[in-house]
Amino acid sequence: MSGHGLFLLLDLVGTFVFAISGAVAAKQRNLDLFGVISVAFVVACGGGIVRDVCIGAVPPAGLSNWRYLAASVVAALITIAAYPKVRQLRHPVLFFDAIGLGLFAVAGAQKALAYGHNSEVAVLLGVVTAVGGGTLRDVLLARVPVVLQREIYASAALLGATIQVVIEQLHLSQPWTPWAATLVCVGLRLMSLRFHWHLPTFAGDPARKTECDR
Amino acid sequence: MSGHGLFLLLDLVGTFVFAISGAVAAKQRNLDLFGVISVAFVVACGGGIVRDVCIGAVPPAGLSNWRYLAASVVAALITIAAYPKVRQLRHPVLFFDAIGLGLFAVAGAQKALAYGHNSEVAVLLGVVTAVGGGTLRDVLLARVPVVLQREIYASAALLGATIQVVIEQLHLSQPWTPWAATLVCVGLRLMSLRFHWHLPTFAGDPARKTECDR
Amino acid sequence: MSGHGLFLLLDLVGTFVFAISGAVAAKQRNLDLFGVISVAFVVACGGGIVRDVCIGAVPPAGLSNWRYLAASVVAALITIAAYPKVRQLRHPVLFFDAIGLGLFAVAGAQKALAYGHNSEVAVLLGVVTAVGGGTLRDVLLARVPVVLQREIYASAALLGATIQVVIEQLHLSQPWTPWAATLVCVGLRLMSLRFHWHLPTFAGDPARKTECDR
Repeated sequence: MSGHGLFLLLDLVGTFVFAISGAVAAKQRNLDLFGVISVAFVVACGGGIVRDVCIGAVPPAGLSNWRYLAASVVAALITIAAYPKVRQLRHPVLFFDAIGLGLFAVAGAQKALAYGHNSEVAVLLGVVTAVGGGTLRDVLLARVPVVLQREIYASAALLGATIQVVIEQLHLSQPWTPWAATLVCVGLRLMSLRFHWHLPTFAGDPARKTECDR
Repeated sequence: MSGHGLFLLLDLVGTFVFAISGAVAAKQRNLDLFGVISVAFVVACGGGIVRDVCIGAVPPAGLSNWRYLAASVVAALITIAAYPKVRQLRHPVLFFDAIGLGLFAVAGAQKALAYGHNSEVAVLLGVVTAVGGGTLRDVLLARVPVVLQREIYASAALLGATIQVVIEQLHLSQPWTPWAATLVCVGLRLMSLRFHWHLPTFAGDPARKTECDR
Repeated sequence: MSGHGLFLLLDLVGTFVFAISGAVAAKQRNLDLFGVISVAFVVACGGGIVRDVCIGAVPPAGLSNWRYLAASVVAALITIAAYPKVRQLRHPVLFFDAIGLGLFAVAGAQKALAYGHNSEVAVLLGVVTAVGGGTLRDVLLARVPVVLQREIYASAALLGATIQVVIEQLHLSQPWTPWAATLVCVGLRLMSLRFHWHLPTFAGDPARKTECDR
């Protein structure tokens, strides 16, 4: 299999696992069939759609390439049909979700560079590609996005996208560079899960205790 | 009246009834005058604005064509001035809302095709045009979008948009085709209201009962 | 300092104070470091990004110009480091926030005109530039946007943007025109704070008391 074919395969794997995470969340909220499929699609493709709109790549690939929609619908239907089993998949889902995170961060940054935009745009939109779908999922479910609250997640995407962009801008990119950047992101994410690493939340701040939080 | 003039009229009727539904929801939340007008405008034009951004039709017609803003503002002011009467209008509002749904789904799909995009883009953006405004309304009011939760609503829009796109792509479109597609969508929506049809929500799933739903 | 340099400076001041308001809100919700920086950036740049996408100015300046990101990150870090002091800054924050509101409304309207769009687009996107970031902040924090609920805020932005657009469209614009429009917006906002002016919310409407509000 060529490198490009492998990348497309893993991109679809990322889409698929992101869609499963969306379908599980939608099902927990008792949404209807259309709601489950919609949230699965939004999680899988929402970040990429926002990226494409921001770089002028219209219509967004998430809308125009049937593979993404198909992967999302299949993931949603499997989730519905095999819900008790999918629920037991917590660790495999987290594992594939980490792979999706890394792939989307690096691929998103690459696409922005390919459209001729600068490093900052590429890094920011790499992160948006990776975490945008999950953020939209939480907005649709009327809760504060998980990505803002806990764990090394967006920061792992930021690291992966930054590595890719820096190496490309220095003209040092090799065919294996995107894989290495993806691996760093995935590795950081998985290690943070394994060892319970968190970003600081300043919870010890004495001022916070008296905060009126609306 | 020409076909085009009739279509524009019905498009504005759709805008108007969608704006009323937004104004009623905003008023129930006790938003101020600007908030009521804003939510009315977002419900009426939000879906079309997202569609236009995704197909590269900038600036979006909802921002650049004064008729849409005017219809939204008038609907909001009427809602405020005649609120007790508007509240009694539940069935007429649902009726016009169904007409707006069908018109927006078909017109949204047509516009995407007219910009040269493929069938998938046209169908998806037809649905977005029809249900996007209501989804944004619920996001602004910090609740899970109704469209994801119940009733044959987005699925009716999906059917209407699909019929229109399939017939156009087969080069079988006649002047009355959009009206027929709209009618199917409106008819399905009204019948689902009349006969209490729902999409499955899997509520009988025993696993759900023990779900921790955050 | 040239007029352009002064405008850029004040634009960055507006970005900075909007970012502080975002960081304070995120910190009150106990978001992590990435979350605080993200919300600060969204409040400071979200409105401008939406405006740029709607006028076809891609990639949006908020993503491609490092000054906006840098101002947001610095504001977030200062907020975290000096939180007890920042909390005491309520009145200065409101003061700078009003300046940011006026600058963003006028600058947003000007940018839309400069891209060749009509008056309605310019006024609407001036308001979006000014209040969009705060609206996105509240959506991310899963609450009804404050801007829809109380106070003369968006309406002050509307007034400032309208003055600027009307004067430009009449070809009466002078170098000081944007400053005057900004001043009117800022003045109205500050006076409404000082004298507790509000838009009507129709709270006395007897129908509302029996409203079922979901």
